[in-house]
Amino acid sequence: MNILFIMYDQLRFDYLSCAGHPHLETPNFDRVASMGVRFTNAFVQSPICGASRMCFYTGRYVSSHGAAWNGFPLRVGEQTLGDHLRASGMDCWLIGKTRMKADAKGMARLGLAADSVIGARQAECGFDAWQRDDGLWAQGPDGFYDEKRSPYNEYLKSKGYPGDNPWANHANAGVDENNDVATGWIFANADKPANIREEDSETPWLTRQTIEFIKQAKAPWCAHVSYIKPHWPYIVPAPYHAMFGPEHVPPARRHAAEREDPHPVFGAYQSNKIAQAFQREEVRSKVIPAYMGLIKQCDDQLGVLLDHLEQTDQLNSTMIVLTSDHGDYLGDHWLGEKDLFHNPSVKIPMIIYDPRPEADTTRGTTCDALVESIDLAPTFVEAAGGEVPGHILEGRSLLPWLRGETPDWRDYAISEFDYSSTQQAARLGLMPNECRLFMVFDGRYKMMHAEGGMRPMLFDLYEDPDEFHDLAKHDAHQEVIDRLYGMLAQWGRRNAQRVTKSDHEIMNARGASLRKGILPFLADGSEVPEEYLQAYRGRAEKTYLDD
Amino acid sequence: MNILFIMYDQLRFDYLSCAGHPHLETPNFDRVASMGVRFTNAFVQSPICGASRMCFYTGRYVSSHGAAWNGFPLRVGEQTLGDHLRASGMDCWLIGKTRMKADAKGMARLGLAADSVIGARQAECGFDAWQRDDGLWAQGPDGFYDEKRSPYNEYLKSKGYPGDNPWANHANAGVDENNDVATGWIFANADKPANIREEDSETPWLTRQTIEFIKQAKAPWCAHVSYIKPHWPYIVPAPYHAMFGPEHVPPARRHAAEREDPHPVFGAYQSNKIAQAFQREEVRSKVIPAYMGLIKQCDDQLGVLLDHLEQTDQLNSTMIVLTSDHGDYLGDHWLGEKDLFHNPSVKIPMIIYDPRPEADTTRGTTCDALVESIDLAPTFVEAAGGEVPGHILEGRSLLPWLRGETPDWRDYAISEFDYSSTQQAARLGLMPNECRLFMVFDGRYKMMHAEGGMRPMLFDLYEDPDEFHDLAKHDAHQEVIDRLYGMLAQWGRRNAQRVTKSDHEIMNARGASLRKGILPFLADGSEVPEEYLQAYRGRAEKTYLDD
Repeated sequence: MNILFIMYDQLRFDYLSCAGHPHLETPNFDRVASMGVRFTNAFVQSPICGASRMCFYTGRYVSSHGAAWNGFPLRVGEQTLGDHLRASGMDCWLIGKTRMKADAKGMARLGLAADSVIGARQAECGFDAWQRDDGLWAQGPDGFYDEKRSPYNEYLKSKGYPGDNPWANHANAGVDENNDVATGWIFANADKPANIREEDSETPWLTRQTIEFIKQAKAPWCAHVSYIKPHWPYIVPAPYHAMFGPEHVPPARRHAAEREDPHPVFGAYQSNKIAQAFQREEVRSKVIPAYMGLIKQCDDQLGVLLDHLEQTDQLNSTMIVLTSDHGDYLGDHWLGEKDLFHNPSVKIPMIIYDPRPEADTTRGTTCDALVESIDLAPTFVEAAGGEVPGHILEGRSLLPWLRGETPDWRDYAISEFDYSSTQQAARLGLMPNECRLFMVFDGRYKMMHAEGGMRPMLFDLYEDPDEFHDLAKHDAHQEVIDRLYGMLAQWGRRNAQRVTKSDHEIMNARGASLRKGILPFLADGSEVPEEYLQAYRGRAEKTYLDD
Repeated sequence: MNILFIMYDQLRFDYLSCAGHPHLETPNFDRVASMGVRFTNAFVQSPICGASRMCFYTGRYVSSHGAAWNGFPLRVGEQTLGDHLRASGMDCWLIGKTRMKADAKGMARLGLAADSVIGARQAECGFDAWQRDDGLWAQGPDGFYDEKRSPYNEYLKSKGYPGDNPWANHANAGVDENNDVATGWIFANADKPANIREEDSETPWLTRQTIEFIKQAKAPWCAHVSYIKPHWPYIVPAPYHAMFGPEHVPPARRHAAEREDPHPVFGAYQSNKIAQAFQREEVRSKVIPAYMGLIKQCDDQLGVLLDHLEQTDQLNSTMIVLTSDHGDYLGDHWLGEKDLFHNPSVKIPMIIYDPRPEADTTRGTTCDALVESIDLAPTFVEAAGGEVPGHILEGRSLLPWLRGETPDWRDYAISEFDYSSTQQAARLGLMPNECRLFMVFDGRYKMMHAEGGMRPMLFDLYEDPDEFHDLAKHDAHQEVIDRLYGMLAQWGRRNAQRVTKSDHEIMNARGASLRKGILPFLADGSEVPEEYLQAYRGRAEKTYLDD
């Protein structure tokens, strides 16, 4: 069996028709959902690209691998999905985005050359790169945001697109009435069609790369197909730019109560520039239709991939996973972007199709178990026939759910967010270690703990599924808060770094030192079989006592 | 300035005359204490050799580096004192024991050869080895406990000591009345003199190695001089074997209350073979005089080192640190060995002499701040003139205390113990992750939390300095317990793995992405200076909208 591990970027859990979106039809996502299981309570370990992805790729929490923010390097030697799958006999390829920053200092310390196979894998979080393109070729007064090579920009240039950065000025820009570039960074331009042939835009380009990969790949393989879209810049080529309009934009899920005495971090985010923009209806009414168009294009391209697999008779030998690295507030809760722990940000789509007969009983069903993004790595290792290294991977294989079993499962999901690099941290006057947020969600109550001496936030999702009413503003829920803090404390004591010794090795080693002569308990020697003492017996060949 | 970082193995905090021992005179330890500061509340991060040492050498807690037990490899890439000191321009040498187990699998994964400089440092937790000798050349039916080369055994053989393992059968054995080897593993033999010339025994041998190192070393250097003694086997050459007798053995500090309804883990340890042996007076009355003789020999050899430094005029340019990796119960609390968190096990001697004039005001004083063993690494980095990497090192420099300052300091000390590899774990029927103990000590109350669903232990060291009365057996101290659990929870959320990005780098990067064109908040473009948008402006050279 092969694994097609497809990730979209910034795709909200509820912007799919199978998840109940009122206006957006996504028949190809729905098709995979009908063939597999849709997990309705799946959460990322951090609602920010880089940190979230490092959790998917390591199978470990943010606080365990340490790459807590975009551009924080994943430390050299940290084991990845690629390491575990290759150990199980499965190749692990990358097609698209990872948001990985290599630990150049660590690699230099260990003498690892970036152009060696080992070095290249270290630099790309364990993947072999079929096509790496991180998809953010932004440029400003201080130069390019991403200094690496962009195969996508090279592709556009080869197709005749002019300029240094056609990613910016064609794929992610329209044309205004004066025939000037209308950049997709400006929300006022979001309703324009991108100045690019649809087939040349990022999503179809990466889909073709994927098909080329599949055509030549040697089974068994895992391919991480990682699209940049529907991530901003919010602009989409024709005909997708015109498929949705303001009439398809759901009202913002927000409440006046959220602006009354908000938690200081929530308050700081409510007043940042992104939030201020998304608080304006003219922004939402232009951006959200573009966002929906980008998703519709993703769905169509998913159809292309599914058709290819079907036509080449690989649908019955390919596990397909559809997920996202986090959501997008889109004005809900008075916010834009992701970052905090309301569902539009921290909850993700998670659809898994397992072609094997064991999964026949669950096809087309949903599962509401508390799923974490780190569960995919052990799922894949198990699917590859490997033994899940439970002392390294912190997630749990989802295969039992796919087989219709009801495994003993976690009681709470954790997510983390480190905003130490942001303007919000500067505004609140906090040092880096004070800028860490933790979510604990037990299926009903969702608590946010904030370092830096601040109170928590608390929502009751049974009574308040929209998460408008922060119960921690008042004293009435201390018992629930204490209970969730107990869960967080238990999680904080988890054994995350004993990665060089498995449980199995430990249990096998119990008592082994005795048989290697470590006997620091002998009162007179009768405590052990004589053979244990054999090395310590014999004539004293020579004595030095009188020397 | 150079640093002489001397570690003894299993040396109790209170077996020195400067710490008030009634019978043991240690004038050379006392001399260093009179020249420097003796820290009276210093604790190891884990009362077991390997885990404790990895904390000293990494400056990080056990749960942060993961090498939680003897023989659990320190994961490849984990940064060490050697890395930090070399970055500050100071070499870092090893003379003696580390209890390091190399992460051979990790090194293979990264293609590191054990015989390269980088590989050798990885394999020896960051030290350059002047003389590595781990000092436990035990042998049993399954072979040698330590398969590495023993320079000490080779030395003994070169001196004519017979047999394969003169460490076992001369340095650590006497001779019985039948002229047979009387192994030091058997406590009944502890009163015999070891069958070795005193000058050839381990402590003088390592002292000579140290002097040879110092004679040729190029300043500035840090030398970790790491003695195996007074660690078991408890046997010492003449004349030290006869210096102390049963009349010098303090009564065991134990209480009948400790055997009544003990905490399950404490109970399991009370009934292990080592504890059973040390519960017998005839064991204590033979072993403790030998233990004291071994310490006396250490003190004499410390005198040799101090004399050498004085005679070569290096005492004014050498920081000297005397400490231990943990203590020894010696029958106190009905226990033998180390392992749990009573003071005889978890508290260590810690004496620091700083030759510089800034430390003149504190010479000969004591300091009762809560010190952790991980504080030495940042102390050394600061002493070497380096910038302490606070995002990697979890301890705090002790230099302010040596200068007579009163720095803002920690409120609690943490220690950890992982007994998953032991017979106690097997007896309690626990899986590895259930076998983890945590100590929280706030200067008055000491709590032990045990994973696996057990109650905590609690001692009030003001009211009960001998730690006899476990207050958690009853309900009266829930408030204290809750408070200490709060400390443990706070510690559990510490930011231990963000080792690739410093606070300084983070604070400098705030807002930097804007100047590289990441602008996901522009409603109409007026939100930023026009220069930020320059790369996104211009004529649309070509349009593809009608293609």
